[in-house]
This record gives sequence, C-alpha cells and structure tokens, in this order.
Amino acid sequence: MGGGDKPPSKEIILCLLPWPAQQDVLDEVKRKHPQVEIRYEFQPVVDGGEGGIPDDLIRDVTILVTLRHLPDPAAAKKLKYVHIFSAGINQLYETPIWKQTTIPFTNSSGVHAPQIAEWVTLQILSASHKQKLLLEWQRKHEWGRAAELGEIWDGVKQRIGILGYGAIGRQAARISQALGMDILAYTAHPRPTPSSKKHTGYTVPGTGDDEGTLPSEWYSGLSTASLHTFLSQSLDILLIAVPLTPQTHHFLSAAEFAILAKRKAFIINIARGAIVNHDDLITALKEGKLRGAALDVTEPEPLPEDSELWGMENVVVSPHVSGVGSAYFERAFGILDVNLSRIEEGRELVNLVDRGRGY
Amino acid sequence: MGGGDKPPSKEIILCLLPWPAQQDVLDEVKRKHPQVEIRYEFQPVVDGGEGGIPDDLIRDVTILVTLRHLPDPAAAKKLKYVHIFSAGINQLYETPIWKQTTIPFTNSSGVHAPQIAEWVTLQILSASHKQKLLLEWQRKHEWGRAAELGEIWDGVKQRIGILGYGAIGRQAARISQALGMDILAYTAHPRPTPSSKKHTGYTVPGTGDDEGTLPSEWYSGLSTASLHTFLSQSLDILLIAVPLTPQTHHFLSAAEFAILAKRKAFIINIARGAIVNHDDLITALKEGKLRGAALDVTEPEPLPEDSELWGMENVVVSPHVSGVGSAYFERAFGILDVNLSRIEEGRELVNLVDRGRGY
Repeated sequence: MGGGDKPPSKEIILCLLPWPAQQDVLDEVKRKHPQVEIRYEFQPVVDGGEGGIPDDLIRDVTILVTLRHLPDPAAAKKLKYVHIFSAGINQLYETPIWKQTTIPFTNSSGVHAPQIAEWVTLQILSASHKQKLLLEWQRKHEWGRAAELGEIWDGVKQRIGILGYGAIGRQAARISQALGMDILAYTAHPRPTPSSKKHTGYTVPGTGDDEGTLPSEWYSGLSTASLHTFLSQSLDILLIAVPLTPQTHHFLSAAEFAILAKRKAFIINIARGAIVNHDDLITALKEGKLRGAALDVTEPEPLPEDSELWGMENVVVSPHVSGVGSAYFERAFGILDVNLSRIEEGRELVNLVDRGRGY
Repeated sequence: MGGGDKPPSKEIILCLLPWPAQQDVLDEVKRKHPQVEIRYEFQPVVDGGEGGIPDDLIRDVTILVTLRHLPDPAAAKKLKYVHIFSAGINQLYETPIWKQTTIPFTNSSGVHAPQIAEWVTLQILSASHKQKLLLEWQRKHEWGRAAELGEIWDGVKQRIGILGYGAIGRQAARISQALGMDILAYTAHPRPTPSSKKHTGYTVPGTGDDEGTLPSEWYSGLSTASLHTFLSQSLDILLIAVPLTPQTHHFLSAAEFAILAKRKAFIINIARGAIVNHDDLITALKEGKLRGAALDVTEPEPLPEDSELWGMENVVVSPHVSGVGSAYFERAFGILDVNLSRIEEGRELVNLVDRGRGY
C-alpha cells in the first residue's frame, strides 16, 4: 500500500479482557510496533451474556482485543479489526457487528493448544491409571493393593480418533503418538494431498503437527454417514475438538454412542458442550456403552447441580477451564503481534475467521 | 553351540508369579519354542520378605521366571538362567543364589516403561492442572471459577531432568518432548558418542528413545559433584529413574533439594524409595523449596500411616503401582521369548544383569 514515504497509520488498540494486564507483554508489542497505542481495560466476564462497550470507549479505536465485549457497529466507525481471545467464537454469531459488518475477526485458535492438549492427556491417563482411586487411598493414608486397581491399559496400540484436526487436535495427536497410540484424524473437508494436510493457523513453537503427518488414517465430511464411517474405525478414545456450528450441534448423540460401544470408547469433549447430546451421553454411560467421559464443556454451562454426570465414577467434569493457562496472555498477544506485522505488510491476517463457515 | 544335528536341549521353565497365567501368552511362547516345557504356579507376594522355593519344585528346572521367590542354590542344580519380572532387582542382593552363584539373571527393564512413563506424565499434569481441585469441585457438584485455579503452566519450554536414562527415562523423555519440554539426561557413565547414547535393553516397540537423540544436554557421573552439576541446570522437573544401588542410596537429600529450590522443582520418584532421604524431602516440601512431589515408591514401604507426606496438598503418594499394567504379563514374557531364541542361537541374553553394577 503506497511508497515508503507514507508514515504508518496510528493504530489505537483497545483491550477489554478479564485478566490484569501483563505489562511486559504489552511493552513487547509496543517495542515491535512503535506506531500503536494500547489501551487496556480489565473487564470481568459477566456470566451468561455478552457485554457491550460504551460508545466513548470505542469511538477512535482501530483494533479491538476482546473475549466477549463488542461495540454497537454505529459507534465503532474506525474499527478495522477485532482479535478474539478465545478459539471458539460462537458467542459472536448473534451480535450486530458480526451480522451487519465485514470487519475482519481473528480468533486465538492455537494459543490454547498446549494446555488443552495436556488436559486431554491428563484425563485419558487419570482414567486409565485410576487416579481417583489413588487419591482416595492417599486421602485415607492407605497403602492400597495393586490387585484392587483392576485393569490398567497404557496407550500403546490404542486408537484415538481426533474429531477436528486443528491446533488442539494436532497437539493432542503429538502427545498421543508419543504414548504409542495410533492417530485417526477427522476434518470437515478432505485433505488428500500433503499440502492440504498442513495447518494454516497459529501453532505454539515446538508443539503440534503442522505438516499433518501423524495420523495413520484421515477421514472427512460433515454428513452423518461420514461421521459414522469415522466412528466405526475401532476407536478406543474419541477426542471432540470441532467448533460448534449448526452442523455440529448434537453431532454426538445416541446413534454415535451406539457405534462407539463396539470398543467401549472413552470420550473427551474440550470443544463446546452442545456438540454432545447430554441426555444421550448419560444414557450411554449408564448402559455401559462408553468406558467413561471427560467433559470440560457441558450443556448447559454451568452444569446443573443435579446433573447425574457429576456423580459418575467414570466421568470427569471440569468447569470449562482446560484452556486456562498462565502462558495464555502472552501467546494470545503473540497472534496480535503477528497480525500487526501483517497489517503493516498488507498481508492476510493469520487466524482470520471465515464468516461463512463460522470459524 | 555345535552342529545342527544336536537336538536342542529340553528347557524346563518354572514360573512363580503373583498373577494368574495368561494361557494365550504361554501358548505363544511354546509355539515359538517347541522344546520348552512351562510349569506355571500362581504365587502371591508375601509382604515384607522374599519367599523360598520348595526343593522338589526346583529340582529339574533349567529356567526360572519369578518376581521374588528364589531357590536354595544347592537344590537348583540344573538352573541355568533366572528371569526376574521386575526392573529393579535390589531384592536379590542378599540372597544366596545372587551371592554364591554366577547363574545369569535378566530383569524386566523396559517392559514397564510405557505405563510408568504414563504415570509420570499423569502426575506432572495432575499437579500442574490442579486435578485434585478439579475432582474436589466435581465431588461437590460445583462449577468452579477459573480464577481459583491459580497459576497453570503447561510443559512448553519447561526443563525436565531425567536422572537415569534407561527404558523408563527414555519413554518419559519422548512424552515430555511431545509436551514441548526440554530434556536433560543423566547417566552413571558418560555417553559422548552417538553409539554410546543408544539403549541396549528391551524397548516396547513404538516407544522410547532408542537412539538417545531427544536430550538437549547429557550429564553423567555418580559423584556428588556430578549430581550437583546436573541438578544446577535450572530444572523445573526432576524424574528419578535410577536403580537403587549403594551409590544411589539417599542420593537426593537436603543438599540436593537446596539446589532444586532455585526453580522450585517438582520431583517424581518411580524408582526406589531409599534413593530419596524422606526426612529431608518432608523438610524441603515444608520450607517451600520444592513445588511438589509424586512418589510411587517410599521409604519404608508401606509408607507409615502417620507420615506427613500423605496429607500434603502438593504431594501424591501411590502404593508402588506405577508399573502395574494389563499388558505387563505379555510384555515380560516377550523378553523371555527373545532370550529363549538367544539361548538357542548361543547369543548373549538381552537385559542381562551385571552383578558388579547390581543392575
């Protein structure tokens, strides 16, 4: 865009985030991009709804960094780019700025991958190694007997199906492969060539599977038939890591659990609760069709206090915290950093959301 | 040894193990080695002592497969090889057959590696992701608040020191590297060349680091000075995976914890309890010098009911079960299988114990 004489336009960045500012991270962004001004507002998340943004706060802002707070489009005349601090962005679909404008959004997909993939591994191992029982013995100061542990199968030769082979799925694959597992990937669109298997979003250095070489098999499609073909591959473990879209709503229901019953799969959901039909899940667990479940997301959230899931021995429920990590803030600003450079260079943004696909 | 006309000598294998026989596994050994006769006796472990073997049971046996039960050397005239079903064999040092004979022993080192390395990963992640708190919330049907989790650091860029780079250490390294960690290895003897870095013992296929290429740094020695050099490398995590020998008794004591305090390391012991001075460990934990500890082995075992370790929030104690796994039996007989072939071929046994080193 133009010759070198033109001074870069001044970017005014407003951050509305439910964490205290980490000044060293903000300073690093300013050091690398001297033309930006960063305004940081600590903004707690209000349960159960999106917040607005006062008009006078957004008026001259060109870049917004936020989790859920979004402005009235009429008040955000200068806004040219929104960076969302979460990976899933279904919270935006009903907002005016999503529906009425073409302002580019980027998400923080990839930033969460190391800690979420660790949570996945933790829950797989916690279930297989009977961590609940080990902790119960410890609580009672009891030197338990190995024979009471029952069967303990390690990961060697187990087949893990990864539904959604994005940043989280790829890092889960990397760890699972190290455990000796066989990796089966599933994506919405076919990935028949080496270049189509590549990951295009942000990856934390030293993690993941950018080239897409870890899966021994790769399935695709959004139809029920496609999904059933994938689920029929003798899966021992199913990791749900797809975005919630109209197509994936209740993607896992009674018919799918019936297929997974073949090997009594262990299922893990770190994506969004509504991808799983929870009534059907509870039934499948009660009928012994599944080995167990680890749910960091539920439908609804919070999970009602009287949900049967809380008390099931072979279920772990956690309050949508698998993405919480102390490195999160720095890494999410790492994406903003990359995109400030790309704006300066006139290149396409990394982690750009496709409004048509919804992620 | 000798020409092809000589019929292979008939091997009589006596198995004295605290598990029921898995007939399919024994049948597979017999299928591959038709000249062997296998006698299997289910033999529960008696707490706190080694068992003997009645003279008439051992008289004509040529190969003994056992965990702790050992014969009077005078009664075992035909015995030419003992396969021990555990990795550590310090339980043998005071037995007559160890001290008075040169009968070769092989251990089951490597068989346990996948499940023990998983236990190690489980406890690292359980501590870092606050699994105790997550389970406590679940027990109370409580949708906890992320802010109450405190700091959660994933493995990316963390430095794990692996004291003892054998089968378990190598598989722990493989998983840790997948988590994004930096691997520092420590061995008794220097491993300066690529060939010296190779693992010579048994490795479960698809696991481990047979070539020894994963560590970014490699330390060695059995002196206190050597150990201190290793521990001074800004370790975030220390995995103890050395055998218990006279040199490694109380290898980790107050002086070592003082070094590890630099980064408040998390320590994990899956080897033998007596490698760690437990009084010093408790003091170091109380003084906040360590981030926490995961102990599958203690001194003594069972850990006394009144030990302070049981009740410490940042400690996990489990009753020497990290090596328990449903694939164990099959894999340990896999070593016997390899060695029956080697005996037939006149080659050196795999996993042969060096009586001088004691492992």
